[in-house]
Amino acid sequence: MNKKGLAILLRSRMRPLSPVSNKVIQLENAPLEGNKIATQNVSSRIQRDLGEVRESMHSVISMNKKEILDTALSEFSEGYFSLSQENRHKLLLVLAREYDLNRTQVRELMKQYVGLEFPNGDGTDEHGHEMEGQLSAFYRIERNLRHALQPMYAVLFERLNTHPGGLKFLATVRADILSIIADENVASIRALDSYLKEKLITWLSPANLELHQITWDDPASLLEKIVAYEAVHPISNLIDLKRRLGIGRRCFGYIHPAIPGEPLIFIEVALMKNIACTIQEVLWHDLPTPECEATTALFYSISSTQPGLAGINLGKFLIKRVIHLVKKDMPNISIFATLSPIPGFMQWLLSKLASSERSVPIFCENILEPEEERALSDAFGDSAAGKNGMEVLLHLLTSANHEWTQSDRLISELKPILLRLCVRYLLLEKKRGKALDSVANFHLQNGAMIGRLNWMADRSEKGLSQSGGIMVNYIYSMEYIEDYAQAYFSTGHIQASPDVHHYIEPLENNEDSMN
Amino acid sequence: MNKKGLAILLRSRMRPLSPVSNKVIQLENAPLEGNKIATQNVSSRIQRDLGEVRESMHSVISMNKKEILDTALSEFSEGYFSLSQENRHKLLLVLAREYDLNRTQVRELMKQYVGLEFPNGDGTDEHGHEMEGQLSAFYRIERNLRHALQPMYAVLFERLNTHPGGLKFLATVRADILSIIADENVASIRALDSYLKEKLITWLSPANLELHQITWDDPASLLEKIVAYEAVHPISNLIDLKRRLGIGRRCFGYIHPAIPGEPLIFIEVALMKNIACTIQEVLWHDLPTPECEATTALFYSISSTQPGLAGINLGKFLIKRVIHLVKKDMPNISIFATLSPIPGFMQWLLSKLASSERSVPIFCENILEPEEERALSDAFGDSAAGKNGMEVLLHLLTSANHEWTQSDRLISELKPILLRLCVRYLLLEKKRGKALDSVANFHLQNGAMIGRLNWMADRSEKGLSQSGGIMVNYIYSMEYIEDYAQAYFSTGHIQASPDVHHYIEPLENNEDSMN
Repeated sequence: MNKKGLAILLRSRMRPLSPVSNKVIQLENAPLEGNKIATQNVSSRIQRDLGEVRESMHSVISMNKKEILDTALSEFSEGYFSLSQENRHKLLLVLAREYDLNRTQVRELMKQYVGLEFPNGDGTDEHGHEMEGQLSAFYRIERNLRHALQPMYAVLFERLNTHPGGLKFLATVRADILSIIADENVASIRALDSYLKEKLITWLSPANLELHQITWDDPASLLEKIVAYEAVHPISNLIDLKRRLGIGRRCFGYIHPAIPGEPLIFIEVALMKNIACTIQEVLWHDLPTPECEATTALFYSISSTQPGLAGINLGKFLIKRVIHLVKKDMPNISIFATLSPIPGFMQWLLSKLASSERSVPIFCENILEPEEERALSDAFGDSAAGKNGMEVLLHLLTSANHEWTQSDRLISELKPILLRLCVRYLLLEKKRGKALDSVANFHLQNGAMIGRLNWMADRSEKGLSQSGGIMVNYIYSMEYIEDYAQAYFSTGHIQASPDVHHYIEPLENNEDSMN
Repeated sequence: MNKKGLAILLRSRMRPLSPVSNKVIQLENAPLEGNKIATQNVSSRIQRDLGEVRESMHSVISMNKKEILDTALSEFSEGYFSLSQENRHKLLLVLAREYDLNRTQVRELMKQYVGLEFPNGDGTDEHGHEMEGQLSAFYRIERNLRHALQPMYAVLFERLNTHPGGLKFLATVRADILSIIADENVASIRALDSYLKEKLITWLSPANLELHQITWDDPASLLEKIVAYEAVHPISNLIDLKRRLGIGRRCFGYIHPAIPGEPLIFIEVALMKNIACTIQEVLWHDLPTPECEATTALFYSISSTQPGLAGINLGKFLIKRVIHLVKKDMPNISIFATLSPIPGFMQWLLSKLASSERSVPIFCENILEPEEERALSDAFGDSAAGKNGMEVLLHLLTSANHEWTQSDRLISELKPILLRLCVRYLLLEKKRGKALDSVANFHLQNGAMIGRLNWMADRSEKGLSQSGGIMVNYIYSMEYIEDYAQAYFSTGHIQASPDVHHYIEPLENNEDSMN
């Protein structure tokens, strides 16, 4: 390739920055390359008849253990991939309803169990031997009940799991199940999902996962996945990708032996002198810090590649193992922190602000401080006449193209207000006792603390829309990680630095004095 | 190292040929090197108090998910290794009895379940929605029951499985459980074993195992394991080992990522022009066949390294994958066969022969043909006076140092008799419908057929004691492997070549005509 060709390749955009989901779904549904399942090309795929696929699903579940399963499994998964989304949904409903458990058998076993004389004694050695005799009937029926309570579709999952390509196929199936649940609340599909999820958690236990450092020397087929699945800060071209894998950067992924060449989740790390304040400096500005001078490992992106593994927290184990590895390799690095988006902040704030327009004032919570009200009116001058502070703020934040970010004056007026509200959102807004923000909840349950908020830290369209450009550093201190995780788990307590607390303490004091 | 030193190293015996089990047990119980669990040196190990270890076991099971588990797990496993065999047994009894399931809770859930109105309908789409509502209560209690029916010790197993070194530790625990069962029939320990075995089968599914070709370039720490665990034809020194990994030879092992550097099972393969008739030619005689001339892959040894994985058939998958791999790499090779011991033949034969001495003649089955009777009397001349053929045979086979193998005349007299009896043993002697011989049962359930019996094929002390030196070739024909396995599984039918059938057909015809 000549120089110009290479330059074009390196600079050409690798995927559109907006609707990323299309590409991901397309990859997700594509036949699994490099394994026995579904080796046909996408274009040559033949749409199969639902009945035919249903037949092959039935043979996989019902055939005797020792018969030729491999062919049937490949047949079924190829057939499944060829189905339209609608037919997949129909098939999954059949699976959930008709391959459920045998309730008559379960009841029969329960009758036998309840009929047993209940052993008394506390299980100590004293009467050990008599008890053993009594218990042996319990053990037998309990084992039979454990088996009888397994739905018939368990066989399908187990068989697929031990089939080449099957685990990845099951992740696709779960993604389809989740899409049904998103549309409609069907009890049998929820039961199917909860069963499959439990199985996947077992099969994807960290003991079965390999930590792989992703480098520029990895196959293009793997790097392509990184580009396609990077969900936090999209990779725009090969230069961008190369920089993320180059000096002063690390990228690690968890790979399951049954899904080779494709990390299930990956994390991008920048080695720096300080905890970065903006994503721009990580992704674009400045030369990387020489690695020997780095003291900080900054986790600036973590992406899961399998929509079908939603709700299975692999990230926690990944972060811990990466910290462990980096610490060992580079003893100079002692600070582990993230530079994270706050994906739910604007959505929460705008709905709070909008509710003030709809509600009778007395029932409406004014989320602004009196001096913030004043500041907003002053900044807006005449045009704010007749509007209260919340209305002004709503107007500013919903203006086209984030117009407010073009005015230095508005930026500096809004800065203290948005930062305070963002701290309130992160620290005080909860759902079932957990942080409302999904990224915050992820890091807090892993045992991180909220370290610092950063103003204008992500000026991308996505960053401004999600959080007004604010980003947050979560800090992982290995000494406290377990304590913090435990406190968050049991009481919902969110650990934050004094700097962060400072934003809302005056307000909290106010509230106290009003009570 | 000088030449002489190297020669001594290469020739020195690597372990005593007899009581091999000691070494294996010692390795098995040794702390697991290279992982977090139990890093102490054997000699510096401190015997821990049973109560103390019991305490640490309790914390592992009962502590909250988010607390610091790693330390507790390491503590427990170190403690367990430090216990005497007797105390391990006591601890396992405590685990089986006191960390069983909550039967009160199980009964409570059953009561709720039986109280539910049983949904009628066949689960089709017709009344889908009404059924969904009814079923949702069933799903909930069924899921709760599935959880309630898990014994409390499930938590210990699950947590160990995800802990570095834990899977290997669990294999040791199971070996200890099996040793209790061998001594005493305790219902709670059998339930513990059956539960742990099911878990191990899941965790060791072929999807989680890596096929590794073991070569002379592998670390000595791995090769040492091969030497220690080779159970069929002990490896006597490094020359022997190097030959088994050299030209014309292959060695493959299954490695689990959680137990690195130690195959769970390994198979040794010789690439040959023909199916070998004796183990001597495989292990010692002749130069290896040039690989390009080989047409046959001979499996001459398969050994499992973990006594704690007894009853978990990893060998079947290993053989299939090795056949697949060899076929792909070396298209010239089209015959896949074993050269296998017949470990139970002599034991069975001697007990048959001995029973004739104890029984009243009329109840005693004469396992010899009339002409065999005559031949034995003739061969023994005067000294056989007053003894029947079976008594003569018993006397010959139990003579010290296998004296009969020193006489060419006796060898040729006994050859047809022992070969016929051996075929009868392999083809007709069954236990619960399966071949009595454990190695035969292993290969037959994998789908092999009995190809040929080989006289004086293993002249080692072990070979003569186990099977009078006879060895057998099992043939794996990939076209028939699934059919044969299925036939054996469902009807106990044993596939054998016409040559093998030939030995016993006259007898079978006799029996037919007698009926």
